[in-house]
Amino acid sequence: MSKILVFGHQNPDTDATASSYAWAHLEREAFGRDAEAVLLGEPNEETAFALAHFGLEAPRLVTSAKAEGVSQVILTDHNEFQQSIEDIRDLDVLAVVDHHRVANFETANPLYMRLEPVGSASSIVYRAYKETGTPIPQAIAGLLLSGLVSDTLLLKSPTTHDSDHAVASELASLAGVDLEEYGLALLKAGTNLASKSADELIDIDAKTFALNGHDVRVAQVNTVDIAEVLDRQEEIEAAISAAIVENGYSDFVLMITDIVNSNSEILALGSNIDKVEAAFNFKLENNHAFLPGAVSRKKQVVPQLTESFEN
Amino acid sequence: MSKILVFGHQNPDTDATASSYAWAHLEREAFGRDAEAVLLGEPNEETAFALAHFGLEAPRLVTSAKAEGVSQVILTDHNEFQQSIEDIRDLDVLAVVDHHRVANFETANPLYMRLEPVGSASSIVYRAYKETGTPIPQAIAGLLLSGLVSDTLLLKSPTTHDSDHAVASELASLAGVDLEEYGLALLKAGTNLASKSADELIDIDAKTFALNGHDVRVAQVNTVDIAEVLDRQEEIEAAISAAIVENGYSDFVLMITDIVNSNSEILALGSNIDKVEAAFNFKLENNHAFLPGAVSRKKQVVPQLTESFEN
Repeated sequence: MSKILVFGHQNPDTDATASSYAWAHLEREAFGRDAEAVLLGEPNEETAFALAHFGLEAPRLVTSAKAEGVSQVILTDHNEFQQSIEDIRDLDVLAVVDHHRVANFETANPLYMRLEPVGSASSIVYRAYKETGTPIPQAIAGLLLSGLVSDTLLLKSPTTHDSDHAVASELASLAGVDLEEYGLALLKAGTNLASKSADELIDIDAKTFALNGHDVRVAQVNTVDIAEVLDRQEEIEAAISAAIVENGYSDFVLMITDIVNSNSEILALGSNIDKVEAAFNFKLENNHAFLPGAVSRKKQVVPQLTESFEN
Repeated sequence: MSKILVFGHQNPDTDATASSYAWAHLEREAFGRDAEAVLLGEPNEETAFALAHFGLEAPRLVTSAKAEGVSQVILTDHNEFQQSIEDIRDLDVLAVVDHHRVANFETANPLYMRLEPVGSASSIVYRAYKETGTPIPQAIAGLLLSGLVSDTLLLKSPTTHDSDHAVASELASLAGVDLEEYGLALLKAGTNLASKSADELIDIDAKTFALNGHDVRVAQVNTVDIAEVLDRQEEIEAAISAAIVENGYSDFVLMITDIVNSNSEILALGSNIDKVEAAFNFKLENNHAFLPGAVSRKKQVVPQLTESFEN
């Protein structure tokens, strides 16, 4: 039987890594398939913390399935081809396990596709373990918990689904950790911004959105101390200005998210600052402003920008 | 709560109708949602037989969701937008339950999407009843059985999944019918070709495929007597020739499928008959030839034509 590669999106985050690692295990255990989890990029510091905490090796990196002699793949935590492996269009996608919108995705053949509008792909993988009656090793439970905690900022993001609370509680129990204590330690592991250059910082988790003809870059960093990030404002603004010029963004919106208190500071530069201000009904002072209660780019920032740019 | 419309593809067949009818019922019963099944076209004779057999009313026809004041929809047995309701691009797709490839489909938001590579969408809907512990009314079990029997030609098509045999047996038991006896009666109800003009006959179930720059039309009709259809060969060829001229098809391939013995006669006209003959390694005599064991356009005809047209 030919090998199947299982992977999350490029620039993998903890949920992409956890969901692919566990789904490959489930494929082997429940269905007897020769499935291997791989990564499309180096794990970030938060993901490295989770892997180390539960004594797991990071999956190896691959950039092409064909180069591995593999033609069958399973995608987790993404479906859009531009977020996937470079030769995705030449491969046979057997399955997708994801919690995002569907776009830029197509197949030649019927497939197994399981998307649910929940807080993490890891939540869905956990449900599949239960449905198939497959025992879930302690370390994998810990990794899946990490994926859910990471994507929902410890269940505080509005992307959290009602069902995710029970999933988190069950996974914490299986993993033998305290949900709040471990969850906060995990999130803090991803907030080590001091070690990063300003160029790196504004690219840790950044996506470009086409809003009414403008390419708007929206980046997010997690921290336990917003003031500490703003201390580097001059350096960060220089990096943002350079990125705007280099990539032709109309605007760059950086969310500096306080993971402890669940708020964000917005730092924005660009040609349409009036539209950014209108989106959030605030005034920037010295290029930044506070956005209380905002932690989700997907639900609390991008839709508001989209609407404002259309007016 | 706003209403949700649930529907299968245009030119609805029995699986499209059954899966949407039952999924709307499941949404109401299991999730308390205000879901209504509707049809995008008149039910065919086979579907009408199934509805009547189990004492169910055909869902009403709609052509636009917006015209109904509805913005939220659920798709069954299809996902490609060109097969869906006319205003699909303006709607919020809440869920998809399907067993086809994915193409020409995208959403703005995360959704529930459940695709399995099995014989019918009805098989998946039945599984969802079981998983949610929702009692399945006898008539709906009968309708779902009809969807599965129709799409798999009574479990004989190579599109039949291993798991479909148990599904058929359980549904027959719940519906209170004998699988073989009812299944054959259902399929025969769809073979009443005598009542149809040749123009109607070649359009009952026809799809166009772009094969290496050629628009190839592949149609299929079910019968219990291939000879009876060939008796109308002259009239059918006239209809095919007219369709070729009117629509610019390079070739027209008609599968006349014997549902009792699971074979097909291929009747083909067009500019690339050498490629059609090479695809199936046969010679047409008087424009037709026998293709033993072939019943599935998706698995036994289109891939072979695709490969032949590429050489």
